[in-house]
Amino acid sequence: MGAMSITPEIISLIDEIRNDRVHGASQLARQAASVLKRAAEHSQAGSVDQFLLELKGVGRELMLSRPAMAPVFNIVSRLLNAILATERELDSIGQFAVYKADELIESSLLAVAQIAGYASELVADGEIVMTHSYSSTVVAALKEAFTQHDIKVITTRSGPGRTGERIAEQLGLYGVPVTFIDDAAMGLYIPTVSRVMVGADRICADGKVVNGIGTYQLALAAGKASIPFYVLCEMLKLDPRLKGEEVVLEEKETFEVVEPGRLPPAVRIKNPYFDVTPLELVAGVITENGLLTVEEVINYILNP
Amino acid sequence: MGAMSITPEIISLIDEIRNDRVHGASQLARQAASVLKRAAEHSQAGSVDQFLLELKGVGRELMLSRPAMAPVFNIVSRLLNAILATERELDSIGQFAVYKADELIESSLLAVAQIAGYASELVADGEIVMTHSYSSTVVAALKEAFTQHDIKVITTRSGPGRTGERIAEQLGLYGVPVTFIDDAAMGLYIPTVSRVMVGADRICADGKVVNGIGTYQLALAAGKASIPFYVLCEMLKLDPRLKGEEVVLEEKETFEVVEPGRLPPAVRIKNPYFDVTPLELVAGVITENGLLTVEEVINYILNP
Repeated sequence: MGAMSITPEIISLIDEIRNDRVHGASQLARQAASVLKRAAEHSQAGSVDQFLLELKGVGRELMLSRPAMAPVFNIVSRLLNAILATERELDSIGQFAVYKADELIESSLLAVAQIAGYASELVADGEIVMTHSYSSTVVAALKEAFTQHDIKVITTRSGPGRTGERIAEQLGLYGVPVTFIDDAAMGLYIPTVSRVMVGADRICADGKVVNGIGTYQLALAAGKASIPFYVLCEMLKLDPRLKGEEVVLEEKETFEVVEPGRLPPAVRIKNPYFDVTPLELVAGVITENGLLTVEEVINYILNP
Repeated sequence: MGAMSITPEIISLIDEIRNDRVHGASQLARQAASVLKRAAEHSQAGSVDQFLLELKGVGRELMLSRPAMAPVFNIVSRLLNAILATERELDSIGQFAVYKADELIESSLLAVAQIAGYASELVADGEIVMTHSYSSTVVAALKEAFTQHDIKVITTRSGPGRTGERIAEQLGLYGVPVTFIDDAAMGLYIPTVSRVMVGADRICADGKVVNGIGTYQLALAAGKASIPFYVLCEMLKLDPRLKGEEVVLEEKETFEVVEPGRLPPAVRIKNPYFDVTPLELVAGVITENGLLTVEEVINYILNP
């Protein structure tokens, strides 16, 4: 059994992450850690070296599965580094990997809860908060804000993947008054809101925020209307290694954009899933370390 | 037979205009004139007064059918004024109405052809032109530009009504190289284009351009990227009587925005069809009188 012998179960779990249309980067990062955990638990490796080769193979596939999402890369690389650094025997290294994966997943969940708390503190009674593109962190923040304040939420379709439906569903079932609009109507509705909160898939070395397609347009409209635009994300998403133009902005299948056969065959259809928003349009970044100013984020990026 | 006795055929033709999801204001204005023409042709009125009451009734319904579209109002009101001003007998007033309707329709078609010519002159070989929201004027302009220059076009879904599919279809079948994207991707693609050309439903007394939902976001993105943003429209669309906030921005059925039953019942769904773009984001307005600067448009609005 060589390094690339990945079981069909693990391959299908990685494919789930690769093909996921609805979850944010934070949730998929935790899912990636749990795939590595499962690979460790079920490993049939006969030696420590073979175990490490197996896990590195799974880790590589996970990292390649969602190139725009920094935390998927970061959580996998942290977990692999911890496993590679330990000097355990075959009888305990699997258990150590499981323990480390759980630790990273818990620490990510704790970060989400902390961000939700900080974000909720920013919001006051009577506010209307607009969001765009599914983020488990933003959903947690808006639920917490709603338990403490009388707020309303406007959410958008959020691209051809329609991840905003999931936001509307989760907040609506929680009792939050939600208005659902098309992405094309963001500019019309922005003057009616008091604040924008979105998640992020990555903040790049040049301060570009990678997030679900349409985020940049919302940031522009918010800027024009002087509505503060906040990014909620774990520190794990601040990635000083890659610049905006070096990030692969994933594209998905075109059937989501237009019904197959509807347009003449010569028409080229594109379905990019992410766009980039410069930090100059951002009022602040809410992390597990609190509300960071854009200057603090840039300082962290320059001196991680 | 009273003033409001509108035949079922005319009612159904007015409903077609009211419920239309795909055509621009210019085309629907010509359609409105042809409905009045048909009402005149088929009138059973026994006196000139009765004839005029009938036509005013049809005209009123037509004006109310698309409140955001200035030319629908303007073409109907010009036609009615011409008919009211003439002092003909019953035997020739119907014929006069038909003649005047044809004259207005032809003059609108001529305006579209002239605008297409002026717009095409602006475009050079190698340009990529982006558009948003169906406009027969823009389609005519891009076809003419394509016959004279080596150009490409990017068009968008254009709101829940998906009127951009019609643009892609018509230009694609004409041989124009077209790329079709979702509205959420406008901001990502805008740096790749050389020029934006959109139509308009109305230019208001305060210089607000009413057009298909999402136009404002495209104008903002173009402004940020320093891409010139042109509005192509007949003079009939410059309406000095109403300010932006006085225009009824029509809303359509919510099933276009999200599949019925998909969201919890408490979630409010909105489907506005138009938004407003300030003239400050516009490089120029291309009319049948040539390319007008924003200053010239404002002068016309102040001194029509």
